[in-house]
Amino acid sequence: MSSGHAPTSTRQFQNVAVVGHHAAGGRREAAGPLGGNLDQVWEDDLAGEATWEAAEAKMAVHVLGGAAEGGGWQLADVDVVLGGDLLDQLVSTNFAGRQHRRPTLGVFSACATFAEAVGLAGVWCELGSARVLAGAWSHHLAVERQFRFPIEFGYQRSPTASWTATAAGALAITQGAGPVRLRAFTVGRVVDPGSTDPMDMGTAMAPAAWDSLQRHLEAVGETWSAYDRVFTGDLGMVGSAILCDLAHDGHFGRVHDDCGRSLYRPDQDVHNGGSGTGCVAAVVASHVLPHLEDGRWHRVLVAATGALFSPTSYQQGESIPAVAHVIELEAGR
Amino acid sequence: MSSGHAPTSTRQFQNVAVVGHHAAGGRREAAGPLGGNLDQVWEDDLAGEATWEAAEAKMAVHVLGGAAEGGGWQLADVDVVLGGDLLDQLVSTNFAGRQHRRPTLGVFSACATFAEAVGLAGVWCELGSARVLAGAWSHHLAVERQFRFPIEFGYQRSPTASWTATAAGALAITQGAGPVRLRAFTVGRVVDPGSTDPMDMGTAMAPAAWDSLQRHLEAVGETWSAYDRVFTGDLGMVGSAILCDLAHDGHFGRVHDDCGRSLYRPDQDVHNGGSGTGCVAAVVASHVLPHLEDGRWHRVLVAATGALFSPTSYQQGESIPAVAHVIELEAGR
Repeated sequence: MSSGHAPTSTRQFQNVAVVGHHAAGGRREAAGPLGGNLDQVWEDDLAGEATWEAAEAKMAVHVLGGAAEGGGWQLADVDVVLGGDLLDQLVSTNFAGRQHRRPTLGVFSACATFAEAVGLAGVWCELGSARVLAGAWSHHLAVERQFRFPIEFGYQRSPTASWTATAAGALAITQGAGPVRLRAFTVGRVVDPGSTDPMDMGTAMAPAAWDSLQRHLEAVGETWSAYDRVFTGDLGMVGSAILCDLAHDGHFGRVHDDCGRSLYRPDQDVHNGGSGTGCVAAVVASHVLPHLEDGRWHRVLVAATGALFSPTSYQQGESIPAVAHVIELEAGR
Repeated sequence: MSSGHAPTSTRQFQNVAVVGHHAAGGRREAAGPLGGNLDQVWEDDLAGEATWEAAEAKMAVHVLGGAAEGGGWQLADVDVVLGGDLLDQLVSTNFAGRQHRRPTLGVFSACATFAEAVGLAGVWCELGSARVLAGAWSHHLAVERQFRFPIEFGYQRSPTASWTATAAGALAITQGAGPVRLRAFTVGRVVDPGSTDPMDMGTAMAPAAWDSLQRHLEAVGETWSAYDRVFTGDLGMVGSAILCDLAHDGHFGRVHDDCGRSLYRPDQDVHNGGSGTGCVAAVVASHVLPHLEDGRWHRVLVAATGALFSPTSYQQGESIPAVAHVIELEAGR
């Protein structure tokens, strides 16, 4: 039975639209280049909650509600919420589900989670009428204390370290037409270049990004010239340079941009750039979609990248594999 | 825009089949009532690896390969792997991906993960030709030390505590006909009855199971009498009793069974029964599917249940919400 099947991990969509989007960030994100585009800014790290984790869940509820509203939907009309975060057992996504009460599917591909959620929303909506919300969120303080050191420790960040964003983004996705079409989704393979430095995610993730982007291009039968932008998220300075070396293609270099580099200014002391599940989500919701809606861009790829490790795997001496999932967005009704 | 849309979180499938399955367990699971049905038994807790976490990843690779083989596929022909586990950042699923190299989507709904993976595989396959593997896995020793106490502590388990199974199950799912059809998938809502005891998951999860089962029944327009069995997983003794009280329906009580009760004999000192992401996966792969394949059962629901908490959320005083996702399986080509 194995002969004759040409494996394809890409789904192309004829009839899926992004009809709403909402992006939120914290103070540092508001001070960055996209600050003016954020729909909501959380000045208070705790957002009025008792813990950072609860603040992250609250941020999730708000961007999901904002995206639904953007689509002209009431939350009660939403069929499925697809989302994820970096916290153990996806507690912010699931505790958000306790509040919004809509059917919830948790997904996890580290910082590639947003593209997994959006891509699966596309699969769901291509199949039939539906109103789906897809998003991702991260809170700097909740994530950092879980993955690395207690924040209070005041450790020194290495030059290749990224800054986990306090950011969230959600999209309202449905079957039908809309200002932006979701055109395709490619599922990534786990690629392990053998990196072992949890302070250098860009190096660990660049090969996975290149693997998935190449596979996507082949599946949809396009060249880089078809796209106004090819965003990765979040390779930052270090990973973006490696990716462009791997691509070895002038045209790719001209269209490539990175969500981790887009969220902050170089003088914001974020070193390699932004990261965290919420980074690419917020950049897509606040930057990519508006450019497609108003016609400045026509066609964009987003290859969200995730470093697949846990504090346990790292302490056990495992290397840090990575994955990248690709979504393709196109302007037009 | 919100008027006129009747929310439905159920997808029904016309053309999706389960063509292969593989179940594995450890020594304790092999000694249980389904031991003879397991395709593979791991006598060694470490499975020849250096850590329990690596052993869990190895178990995942083996059941995925076994399911592919059962479907007559080579692993290279597989388009997408959907899977999940209980470990922080889904490390066993992702490290398995590093080995099998097939495109991987991590999903997480605690012990409801298996139904999420299978249901999304159904959505993927209903949309077009595809070969998808869906599964879940858990390793008692890796999970317990992460969620509760160091194993070496030798703490006393309370009477309502479940036993996290060392178990794994995977299905080969494709578009087309097969000995078993995947007929429908209902996405669960997060339901929080306010439980705070991490040693009593059955009480926390029973209301979510009932919520999703009712919604599924309504969406597909059936009554309990349409089903030979309605499995929950894993409510155990305590949760099953609560569920049957909630149902308050004699027919439901007669068709209801629970994966957590099926995996072990009462004298195996597992108290409430089995649990863990791998429990329902192994019971479906080793028990439910064979019954459908040989015609003993015709139609079965599986409502996998998950308790949505992390050690952090628990220590912060949060209650334990839960979710249940439902898949419907039917005999016949």
